[in-house]
Amino acid sequence: MLTEIRIAGFGGQGVILAATVIGKAAAIFQGAYATMTQSFGPEARGGSSSAQVVLSDTPILYPYITQPDVLVVMSQEAYTRFSPELKAGGILITEQELVRVDQIPEGARVYAVPATRLAEELGRRVVLNIVMVGFFCAVTGLLEPDAVRKAVADSVPPNMRKLDLDAFDKGFEYGKTAKVNGKHECEPVPSMENV
Amino acid sequence: MLTEIRIAGFGGQGVILAATVIGKAAAIFQGAYATMTQSFGPEARGGSSSAQVVLSDTPILYPYITQPDVLVVMSQEAYTRFSPELKAGGILITEQELVRVDQIPEGARVYAVPATRLAEELGRRVVLNIVMVGFFCAVTGLLEPDAVRKAVADSVPPNMRKLDLDAFDKGFEYGKTAKVNGKHECEPVPSMENV
Repeated sequence: MLTEIRIAGFGGQGVILAATVIGKAAAIFQGAYATMTQSFGPEARGGSSSAQVVLSDTPILYPYITQPDVLVVMSQEAYTRFSPELKAGGILITEQELVRVDQIPEGARVYAVPATRLAEELGRRVVLNIVMVGFFCAVTGLLEPDAVRKAVADSVPPNMRKLDLDAFDKGFEYGKTAKVNGKHECEPVPSMENV
Repeated sequence: MLTEIRIAGFGGQGVILAATVIGKAAAIFQGAYATMTQSFGPEARGGSSSAQVVLSDTPILYPYITQPDVLVVMSQEAYTRFSPELKAGGILITEQELVRVDQIPEGARVYAVPATRLAEELGRRVVLNIVMVGFFCAVTGLLEPDAVRKAVADSVPPNMRKLDLDAFDKGFEYGKTAKVNGKHECEPVPSMENV
């Protein structure tokens, strides 16, 4: 069982840290396997940032993803570039105020969160990535919230720990509310078998 | 043309940052392509840390490495685990005081640097990873030193920038001296074609 995730946005949004937290939560705190691959290249020079995470219950032989089960986009450019790759029936998560979804990928469930604004409400826009992680956690149901909170605490500097945990909680609560409101369907994403 | 690099050690040595700096230097500051893959799994729970970097002059289709051209090890466990994978004729770089090389892999060139001690001479043991990067840069000849210095400056917090650049220079000078002393051969590692 294998789940492919892509997280993309622009430089400075903390895409890599978000991906690292998800991988760490799955592998170190939940006993699964995970890889995180970061590509540097022309896109990086242009200010884009993208990371690939593979979660699995067995060792991962191929860490590159082809069709993500879950796509998290924090910029319009990332949405335009990567949304065609989303697996049919996959989950698309967007930063609500930065991404306009003009066409919903086939069979996809779409969840939007104003992560930047929620981070600003906490006083530091920089934690928007961890708000996204909290929201991701609520809407996908892929990870144990406690494992993710541990991974957050383990991945950020001590002086940012409380703020980032608050950011996680804020994104998570927002995701749960979205669910209660019935705005979005919210079954956990099925883990996909990759052959 | 493709060069595969593995960097491994134990948690807290900054393995991932060292790998990121190398990838960033190649791709963002030298116009090449690079990927960095980090695996989380049982090893990570046990305190080991390992990263794979692929450098290429064309987009990278497969970011996992099979036989590194260059292996950098900062712990005995990492040496034991990964040295059998080193490509024949590859380069092995070790943290001199943490790794005892009991058997030189076939045709390998071996370079050792007391990175922890050099970092301590700068007042902060934590920069040993960037000392390793400087040494790597001198003995492999794979990257432009100026590109790596930019990548270092770009990858560490502002308050650590000067110290990390000093660490880079210290490792680089040590690597150049090793060369002058004739203790090690020092031709640049050939980029390997991967089919």
